[in-house]
Amino acid sequence: MPDRSMVLIIPAAGSGSRLGSDIPKPFIEIGGKTILEHTLSVFAGIPELAEVIVPTSGDYLGKTRSVLDRLFPGLPAHAIEGGSERYKSVQIALNSVQSDAAFVAVHDAVRPFVRPKEIVQCLDAATEFGGAILAIRAKDTIKVSGSDGTVSSTPNRTTLWQAQTPQIFQLKILRRAYRLAEKERFAGTDDASLVERSGEIVKLVEGDARNFKITYPLDLKMAEWLIGNNK
Amino acid sequence: MPDRSMVLIIPAAGSGSRLGSDIPKPFIEIGGKTILEHTLSVFAGIPELAEVIVPTSGDYLGKTRSVLDRLFPGLPAHAIEGGSERYKSVQIALNSVQSDAAFVAVHDAVRPFVRPKEIVQCLDAATEFGGAILAIRAKDTIKVSGSDGTVSSTPNRTTLWQAQTPQIFQLKILRRAYRLAEKERFAGTDDASLVERSGEIVKLVEGDARNFKITYPLDLKMAEWLIGNNK
Repeated sequence: MPDRSMVLIIPAAGSGSRLGSDIPKPFIEIGGKTILEHTLSVFAGIPELAEVIVPTSGDYLGKTRSVLDRLFPGLPAHAIEGGSERYKSVQIALNSVQSDAAFVAVHDAVRPFVRPKEIVQCLDAATEFGGAILAIRAKDTIKVSGSDGTVSSTPNRTTLWQAQTPQIFQLKILRRAYRLAEKERFAGTDDASLVERSGEIVKLVEGDARNFKITYPLDLKMAEWLIGNNK
Repeated sequence: MPDRSMVLIIPAAGSGSRLGSDIPKPFIEIGGKTILEHTLSVFAGIPELAEVIVPTSGDYLGKTRSVLDRLFPGLPAHAIEGGSERYKSVQIALNSVQSDAAFVAVHDAVRPFVRPKEIVQCLDAATEFGGAILAIRAKDTIKVSGSDGTVSSTPNRTTLWQAQTPQIFQLKILRRAYRLAEKERFAGTDDASLVERSGEIVKLVEGDARNFKITYPLDLKMAEWLIGNNK
C-alpha cells in the first residue's frame, strides 16, 4: 500500500474586494460559520490527512487557530502568517510542513462545497500520476483576446477545462515546482501550472459545478442559499 | 447616423437534459413565466429592434407565438420550427429574416439576466467593429487537456474571456460566416467563432457575471432566487 498521507494547505489571506466587503472572503460568515470553517469541515473527515496549514493575515490568526483546534483535535494544525499573494502563502506553508506526509493538497478557502468523495478521487489520481486536480468541462465558449480587445482565437471547447481545487501533488513535486518558479520568477494562477512547468504530469479529475469558488456577490448569494438548505 | 436596426434571433429548441428536466430549458417556468419570456422581456425595450425570430420545436410554436405577440405588438416577430442543433436553428432563422435590418443579435434563450445597457453597449461596438460579443474575464484557471486526460497546457488567464450573448454582427457578415461554415462543415460553439473564421473582427465587450447561462441545476436555483427577489 503506498503512503497516501497528506498535508492540507488552505491559503486564506485573500481580500474581500471583488465581493465588495471589508472582511476577507474566507472570514465572511454564512449560517453562523465562516466560509473557511465550512471548507475545513469537509476535510475533517478525510482519513489520509496528516497535517493542516492555514496561512492567513495577522488579524485572523487567533480565530483560525481556535477553529483548527476544534476541527482537527488529533492533528498538527497551524495557522501561520501568510504572504501578500496567494502563491507566497502557499510557499510559506510548504516551508512550514512538519510531518513527513507524501502528498500535499492545496485547496481554496472559498470553495466550501467540495465533497469528501471528490477529494479522495483526486488523491487516488495523484497517487497514480504524481499530481491531480479537480476540474469541470468548460461551460462557456472561451475566447483568447488580442491586445486590441478583439478576439484573436477560439480554442476548441471540447479540450478545455475549468480548474478547481483541491490540487494534490506529491509533496516533493510541488516543492520542486515552487523552487523552480521562484528561480524563474514565474507566477501562475494555480498550483498545477507551476507543476506542469516543472515537467511533471497533472491528471484532470472530473468534478462538479457545485464546487465553485465564491468570487462574485452572486456566488455569495448562491452559497448562502446552499448552506441555508443544508447543502 | 448609421443604420442600427437589428434583428433578434433567440434559438430556443434546446433540451432540458443537463437540468434533469423533461421540459426544454427555455420553457421551464420561474415566477409564473418561462425563462424564454423573461429573456425576451429584456429586449422588448430596445429601440433598435426591427424583428424578432425564435426558432423552437414544433410543440412550443403556439406558446412562443402568443408570448411574441404580447411582448412585441408593433414588430414582425415569428416563432419558427428550429433545427436539431443550435447552429441549424440560427441558420434557418437567418434565412427567414424579412426586414432589411443592418444588424443581427443572437442571444441564448436561457440568459435572462442580460441588461438593456449591455445590449446597447454590444450594439455600439458592433456598429464600430462589424461584430461584438458580451464576455467576462475568465474566473477559473483554464486547462487544455491532452487525449490522455492530463493537462497539456495552461493558457495565460489574463488573455482569456468567457463568451456570453448577445453576439451582434452586421447581418451580411453573419450570413456570410454561416455560408462559409456550411461549405467547410465547421461547427463552432458560438456564432462569433464562425465570424472569426470568416476573417472578420469580433470585439469583446466586458459584461457581467450576472448574465450567466442557465445550464446546471444550480444555475436554475440561482435564477429562481434572482427572479424571486425582483432580480
